[in-house]
Amino acid sequence: MQIFWDPRQLAHAPSIEMHNGRIEPCSETPARAQAILDAVGPTELPRDQGEDPILRVHPRAYVDFLKSAHDDWCAAGRTGDALPYAFPAVRRRSLSLDRIDARLGRYAYDTCTPIAAGTWTSAYWNVQTALSALEALETDRTAFALCRPPGHHCGADYMGGYCYLNSAAVAAEAAIAAGRSRVAILDIDYHHGNGTQDIFYARGDVLFVSIHADPATDYPFYWGHPDETGEGEGEGATLNLPLLRGTGLTEFERALDQALDRIAAFRADLLIVSYGADTYAHDPISHFAIETRDYPLLARRIACLGLPTLVVMEGGYALDALGHNVAAFLSGF
Amino acid sequence: MQIFWDPRQLAHAPSIEMHNGRIEPCSETPARAQAILDAVGPTELPRDQGEDPILRVHPRAYVDFLKSAHDDWCAAGRTGDALPYAFPAVRRRSLSLDRIDARLGRYAYDTCTPIAAGTWTSAYWNVQTALSALEALETDRTAFALCRPPGHHCGADYMGGYCYLNSAAVAAEAAIAAGRSRVAILDIDYHHGNGTQDIFYARGDVLFVSIHADPATDYPFYWGHPDETGEGEGEGATLNLPLLRGTGLTEFERALDQALDRIAAFRADLLIVSYGADTYAHDPISHFAIETRDYPLLARRIACLGLPTLVVMEGGYALDALGHNVAAFLSGF
Repeated sequence: MQIFWDPRQLAHAPSIEMHNGRIEPCSETPARAQAILDAVGPTELPRDQGEDPILRVHPRAYVDFLKSAHDDWCAAGRTGDALPYAFPAVRRRSLSLDRIDARLGRYAYDTCTPIAAGTWTSAYWNVQTALSALEALETDRTAFALCRPPGHHCGADYMGGYCYLNSAAVAAEAAIAAGRSRVAILDIDYHHGNGTQDIFYARGDVLFVSIHADPATDYPFYWGHPDETGEGEGEGATLNLPLLRGTGLTEFERALDQALDRIAAFRADLLIVSYGADTYAHDPISHFAIETRDYPLLARRIACLGLPTLVVMEGGYALDALGHNVAAFLSGF
Repeated sequence: MQIFWDPRQLAHAPSIEMHNGRIEPCSETPARAQAILDAVGPTELPRDQGEDPILRVHPRAYVDFLKSAHDDWCAAGRTGDALPYAFPAVRRRSLSLDRIDARLGRYAYDTCTPIAAGTWTSAYWNVQTALSALEALETDRTAFALCRPPGHHCGADYMGGYCYLNSAAVAAEAAIAAGRSRVAILDIDYHHGNGTQDIFYARGDVLFVSIHADPATDYPFYWGHPDETGEGEGEGATLNLPLLRGTGLTEFERALDQALDRIAAFRADLLIVSYGADTYAHDPISHFAIETRDYPLLARRIACLGLPTLVVMEGGYALDALGHNVAAFLSGF
């Protein structure tokens, strides 16, 4: 299996997030990528496909914001990472905003997603990594994009949950532009992939299926409930399978079978897996009970769909086990 | 002029807010009220009118959230003030939320509005203060409610900008319930009164007119633009007059005359003034250039409307001048 990675994905090195009433060290660090690299073996550099594939998902104004935000933050006399503090939670509409704090809040929904000096660089190469892994499916059955930072909480025009550009969504759009007609996205990160869901919520040609912690107890709280099923042409093309804290292999497999049945019925010609290793029993910010030895079993079930499969890295924060968990998952394909 | 105040409004003593990428001491302190009390002379206690007038503006679920939020925060193992970190900025809808962080984000739009142990108590007596000042208009032409914390950023079901219950809005509804038919609210705090605007946005019987710093450069950023004019039956009953940073008396008076013309044309039978002393030239978090000697001039212009007038305290953070500014303003009536 080809694995794609670009060292520029390390440029994003935020130091803080604001969370549970405190400013704390950011859990999403370059060390995560290093831990995965150490475990999965040789990688290949992506080729640069420019901004066009990104702009199929993310509007120009949002991309420009990401590029300039840290410079604008410094120009306002601030130091360190840029964080928002006020959000257009009611009567959200298109506005011409000047102050960096206003733009940070407009293009975010939380205070956990700091913009540092290297954020745009890493987000950009992140997406290129996913696009090159997608191309590798022309010859291979499966490919892995070592995406870092993750992407699935990021909507078309907002960041959140450590995510800046949505690599899975950009890859799905690129696949459709290249001739695929029905793409399924299976999100098995511990947290609901609210950004991906939102991007394709009204689309009938992209199925979004997510297994995740119940948003009643876990981030991102406001999205990921079973009654979110899509709208318009996308009605029925979103399936959320929330699970309780403490979920282990047996219950996870039951939900996975339900997800795979839906994907099979959708007659997808491409599968994108948003894979988070934060379902791991000892993940420091999550609460499922999947063990390292379980990941190959999950992957094997997914592989049984027989679809060309792009695996995109999302979360996972148990640094000592992260590489082993990713390698174990990939070994199942 | 009767002045209403209850010492329980001091119970709310938050220590922090998160702002411009840092956690800092909260600018909205009990010392603000003390500074005003020292300057304005004797006050009267409000009578307790219970929760019914509050529930005319704020839904029961929001009120219950305010009451229990700090206990729930402590029960989750947290210490200090409760602050949110994730917000339902897209696809906001009615949800049954469990975790305190989810409910904080659902009922707030910023990270500047901490909930401390005494928050509900102060917010409650704050509103009672405004309601008793309203009653004093049965015999007097003008009355002052020393509201603290402020209220005008608070919407029906969300807190923000140091505001938890919207005293001006609760007083307006109480006045209508008591027989007034057309109420005008004039908001002359430095910051746009987005909560008050939102509460009455679709109402034709309550006129909302606000003079404030341009939201392009100043909080609350997303609301307070001239093209926000109301909707439905409220179309035309919202008037926003944003002014540039650096605005002094002359330009402020020009906007005030425009505001007063609109209020006169509305044929209001009651005026509620949301008064912020943060238009003061030396306010530490604001950028207008009004001097202490200017405040009586502004009040005199407002008094010329000849309407029964309830003055409700909103912002103002220059502790050494705050009392003088409030006393100067009240002296103009």
